[in-house]
Amino acid sequence: MATSSSHSAVRRVAIFGGTHGNELSGVLLVKHWLKHGEEIARRSMEVRPFITNPKAVEKCVRYIDTDLNRVFDNQSLSGDQKGKVPYEIEQARKINSLFGPKGSKNGYDVILDLHNTTAHMGATLILENSRDDFTIQMCKYIQTSMAPESCAVLLIEHPGVKYATTRSIAKHPIGIEVGPQPQGVVRADILRTMKNVVNYALDFMQYFNEGTEFPPCSLEVYRVLEKIDYPRNESGDLGAIIHPSLQDQDWKPLNPGDPMFITMDGEVTCYEGENTVYPTFVNEAAYYEKNQAFAKTEKVTLMAQALRL
Amino acid sequence: MATSSSHSAVRRVAIFGGTHGNELSGVLLVKHWLKHGEEIARRSMEVRPFITNPKAVEKCVRYIDTDLNRVFDNQSLSGDQKGKVPYEIEQARKINSLFGPKGSKNGYDVILDLHNTTAHMGATLILENSRDDFTIQMCKYIQTSMAPESCAVLLIEHPGVKYATTRSIAKHPIGIEVGPQPQGVVRADILRTMKNVVNYALDFMQYFNEGTEFPPCSLEVYRVLEKIDYPRNESGDLGAIIHPSLQDQDWKPLNPGDPMFITMDGEVTCYEGENTVYPTFVNEAAYYEKNQAFAKTEKVTLMAQALRL
Ligand SMILES: [Zn+2]
Ligand SMILES: [Zn+2]
Repeated sequence: MATSSSHSAVRRVAIFGGTHGNELSGVLLVKHWLKHGEEIARRSMEVRPFITNPKAVEKCVRYIDTDLNRVFDNQSLSGDQKGKVPYEIEQARKINSLFGPKGSKNGYDVILDLHNTTAHMGATLILENSRDDFTIQMCKYIQTSMAPESCAVLLIEHPGVKYATTRSIAKHPIGIEVGPQPQGVVRADILRTMKNVVNYALDFMQYFNEGTEFPPCSLEVYRVLEKIDYPRNESGDLGAIIHPSLQDQDWKPLNPGDPMFITMDGEVTCYEGENTVYPTFVNEAAYYEKNQAFAKTEKVTLMAQALRL
Repeated sequence: MATSSSHSAVRRVAIFGGTHGNELSGVLLVKHWLKHGEEIARRSMEVRPFITNPKAVEKCVRYIDTDLNRVFDNQSLSGDQKGKVPYEIEQARKINSLFGPKGSKNGYDVILDLHNTTAHMGATLILENSRDDFTIQMCKYIQTSMAPESCAVLLIEHPGVKYATTRSIAKHPIGIEVGPQPQGVVRADILRTMKNVVNYALDFMQYFNEGTEFPPCSLEVYRVLEKIDYPRNESGDLGAIIHPSLQDQDWKPLNPGDPMFITMDGEVTCYEGENTVYPTFVNEAAYYEKNQAFAKTEKVTLMAQALRL
């Protein structure tokens, strides 16, 4: 019954830093690797570090004109926009021509896109496709290697929540999100975690290229269900903030009746759903403007076939 | 020997929020109190909440053109600058005319200026003058009321480190700095701490106005000695980051030989001073651009005379 999926060797891998210019772990690591490529070199493949939003990095802001990690859709990439093009759209087209084109045979095999969050998510791998056995096997390998440190896998396949990521131009995109770290700050502990995740990802690909066979595996992932916004007042300002009992509780069960928000007057809003969910991106700084206080997820187990060259 | 210092009643108090537009505890509290003044009302005095940098608050950035909390010097306030005036200088002049003028009899009695930091400083009171018995007594009262929660007092009197703060237009300026909280994030626990500090400050002034006598007191403060920058490379970029054993260790002793920084290659820089110091503002996001990785302080005990109306 169990079949094995055959897959061609990984030839080209990119490591993106600075997709958000104020998420400093990836910025510092990629800048370092641009000078010290030997640390990420693996003999069976090309590994290319790349700063994706240099102007945002220079100013230490998330973006200049628009969020680079939301504009890798066909319309933005196709270049038929009229008038002055936002900086990040220009940049997206350039990145697409260097590492894509998106959806083509010529795209890079794997892109590791490095991000930080202010949420207490620890090391997190972001998976875009539940049927991509290669990436599921890679997540499993990284997760196992990181233990006992936790390494959650977030699946953002849901059509209402999925977005056109920078890394989506690769055949196997994977986001690496590590927190908590404030914007504009670099913490040594978070940096080390991110570096470990990248190195385990590269090790996996090297072993695979060398002929290592990976047995069938199951992977527990948190599948995004829905974004939850803050309560807002008439003028759209925050009407309440994350309740202390939800703060820093990413990946922990939120049960019906549990508090989610609290107003300045102490009024509490509780979760009224029917099922236990697992919040993530709780109180992420960058998501206030995206009307997201946290994302609800459910636990799902994915299966991957055995993998070999 | 012990003398008592007589002081006139406190008539006008301002509470400033949003001096830095992305430090959200003060922004949210002041916006709330603008609608619910009863929460901060004390019958013996006027208490006026005020958003000092509304444009920066609107955009959720530290400042628009220049740091509002550095421009309350006589030159900036006097208005003889040529050409287009930066937004924050305009705003400083407006604030000075509403709550000052700086150094005059007409200035507000007390300004509480609300700030957040990404450093693990807990509740911190920032004192500008070691001979201001009234403010020392207020700090002592707040510190005692906050116990067992810690409430450090930072003295920024050193001429090389002192800066022209927004609150410096009051007779008794006091900064309230609470962390850790990322920029652009509001945490319920940090908000509650800040609210408590403000309320204890107002209680102190109300008791004082009612005739309560405060006995002579001593106050342990951390006096700023020097700013320490990150190691930098040729191009001015970060050459090293805060060492994990210094991260989150604000107010803890840094002894000769203790690690301060670590490079991407794992090289460690240690503290080579002769005396134990107490670091603060360790890894504050806003201070990367100010060339400050942390500030060195020493412990000093201040004495204040008894205080009565
Ligand atoms: Zn990001
Ligand atoms: Zn501030």
